[in-house]
Amino acid sequence: MAVVGLGSMGGGMARALRMAGHDVVGIDPSEAARAAFEADGGTCIAPGELSSRSIDVLVIAVVTAAQTRSVLTGADGLADALADGAVILSCSTMPPDETRALADTIEAGDARDIAFLDCPMSGGPAKAASGTLTFMASGSAAAFKRAQSALEAMGEKTYRLGDAPGAGSSMKLVNQLLAGVHIAAACEAMTLAVRMGLEPRQVYEVITNAAGNSWMFENRMPHVLEGDYSPKSAVNIFTKDLGIVSDTGRAQEFPTPMAGQALQLFTMAAAAGMGGDDDTSVARVYAMLAGLELPARES
Amino acid sequence: MAVVGLGSMGGGMARALRMAGHDVVGIDPSEAARAAFEADGGTCIAPGELSSRSIDVLVIAVVTAAQTRSVLTGADGLADALADGAVILSCSTMPPDETRALADTIEAGDARDIAFLDCPMSGGPAKAASGTLTFMASGSAAAFKRAQSALEAMGEKTYRLGDAPGAGSSMKLVNQLLAGVHIAAACEAMTLAVRMGLEPRQVYEVITNAAGNSWMFENRMPHVLEGDYSPKSAVNIFTKDLGIVSDTGRAQEFPTPMAGQALQLFTMAAAAGMGGDDDTSVARVYAMLAGLELPARES
Repeated sequence: MAVVGLGSMGGGMARALRMAGHDVVGIDPSEAARAAFEADGGTCIAPGELSSRSIDVLVIAVVTAAQTRSVLTGADGLADALADGAVILSCSTMPPDETRALADTIEAGDARDIAFLDCPMSGGPAKAASGTLTFMASGSAAAFKRAQSALEAMGEKTYRLGDAPGAGSSMKLVNQLLAGVHIAAACEAMTLAVRMGLEPRQVYEVITNAAGNSWMFENRMPHVLEGDYSPKSAVNIFTKDLGIVSDTGRAQEFPTPMAGQALQLFTMAAAAGMGGDDDTSVARVYAMLAGLELPARES
Repeated sequence: MAVVGLGSMGGGMARALRMAGHDVVGIDPSEAARAAFEADGGTCIAPGELSSRSIDVLVIAVVTAAQTRSVLTGADGLADALADGAVILSCSTMPPDETRALADTIEAGDARDIAFLDCPMSGGPAKAASGTLTFMASGSAAAFKRAQSALEAMGEKTYRLGDAPGAGSSMKLVNQLLAGVHIAAACEAMTLAVRMGLEPRQVYEVITNAAGNSWMFENRMPHVLEGDYSPKSAVNIFTKDLGIVSDTGRAQEFPTPMAGQALQLFTMAAAAGMGGDDDTSVARVYAMLAGLELPARES
């Protein structure tokens, strides 16, 4: 039996697993999330109702390292429900050191044979639901073997980055450093363009065809053009992820000034009350400071 | 007659014009540049030898605004050699305010009818030589009309950004803000990855297929992977261009913290004696600080 949480990513991943023929059980504190999964034909269960040693594959796609640890070893934690020979797919963005520590706790701390795969992912809720995520994974050969059919159901591609947990989280951190800096830079560039009198849609057309383009510029700037700051991905994700970059850099005595500057901009957006809004709200910070008018949402 | 300088970009642009059947004369202080253009079948001339009012199309592709002004109105300046009805294509990256001021000087300051097209470009020497540049242009209808056949010979695409000089330079500045930030971020991300023990080629493969990708990451990081810091595009270009972003932002009372941070990193590279080296030398700044070993060039 595979068990998956039903958050914004986990809901889609559970669906992709079910579509691929896996025996999936959804677990989530949110009643709405459970109702949606059941309406779609899925099965849910309360954590306390799980039989001991009944989970073969546990997919954890929460937000933080603390939440990941809590899913396993907190009150109602699922550690006891893991079967001998089970695998944990740890898909959240976590500090590499905490990933390693948690994997050690799990793999070394039990008489059962439980494997831990460090496998953060790239791709949003739409890719999760269609089973086309990309995983950046590291772990033992056993972990990869046990996770293989679940990874194939949920993802289009899995990068194998090494035989120990930590490398997957490190690669995800590198990706988030770039993603966060690129969003902040896109917001700075677009608002400066507006200040200079350029037409935002023309800026989008030119830049997406020029050397200044990035995946994030292309993906996120339509939100600014449409004035739609409802959260496709929230500011708070980047205060968290760039915080991990900053903490990891400091722990390794490695400077990260670009990520640090971007972190400050996302923190400004959070300070202005936009922490739960779309990550392009950094553009609204520049606009607010400079009294700039950005495109408004059509009502 | 069309007149073009023969620098790293101008040499290719002159070639593309010649291939398209234009009557082209090359002018350049560098004897080597002139010899190369002549060896390829082109014609060169010394500025003093140009007949008065003989230039119909003048393409200026130098580095700075001061150089652009000097080409026109300095000692041996070409302003007097412009024919009635001529057009100037100003292709260098310049502060929008200086572009506007220079265009005013030229268009308003003479009894002749001379049009000024603000048309900075995107694309390197290879695209220049094959006539596949992208131009970000603004200027009068007359300027566009007179420049049209030259633009078609030198470029694949011309964005028309407005009917007055300034908009082209503004758009280029937005592009350079993003390009500079993306190079600095790519160098930070790649070196942090190495510090965390990831394999650089694997980082390149994963990131170029993930949401952290940028045009610059994909284009520049192979230089770091190959340990080749010979200048394809130099650090000094970005201390200049991000300096223009910073100055323009300050003049407009508009903050540019991302560009400002990247400018500091390129300035560090210049301070370390790498101003003439490839712009990815920012990676060597991080490596130098952190005692990190980056891939070395195969001899």
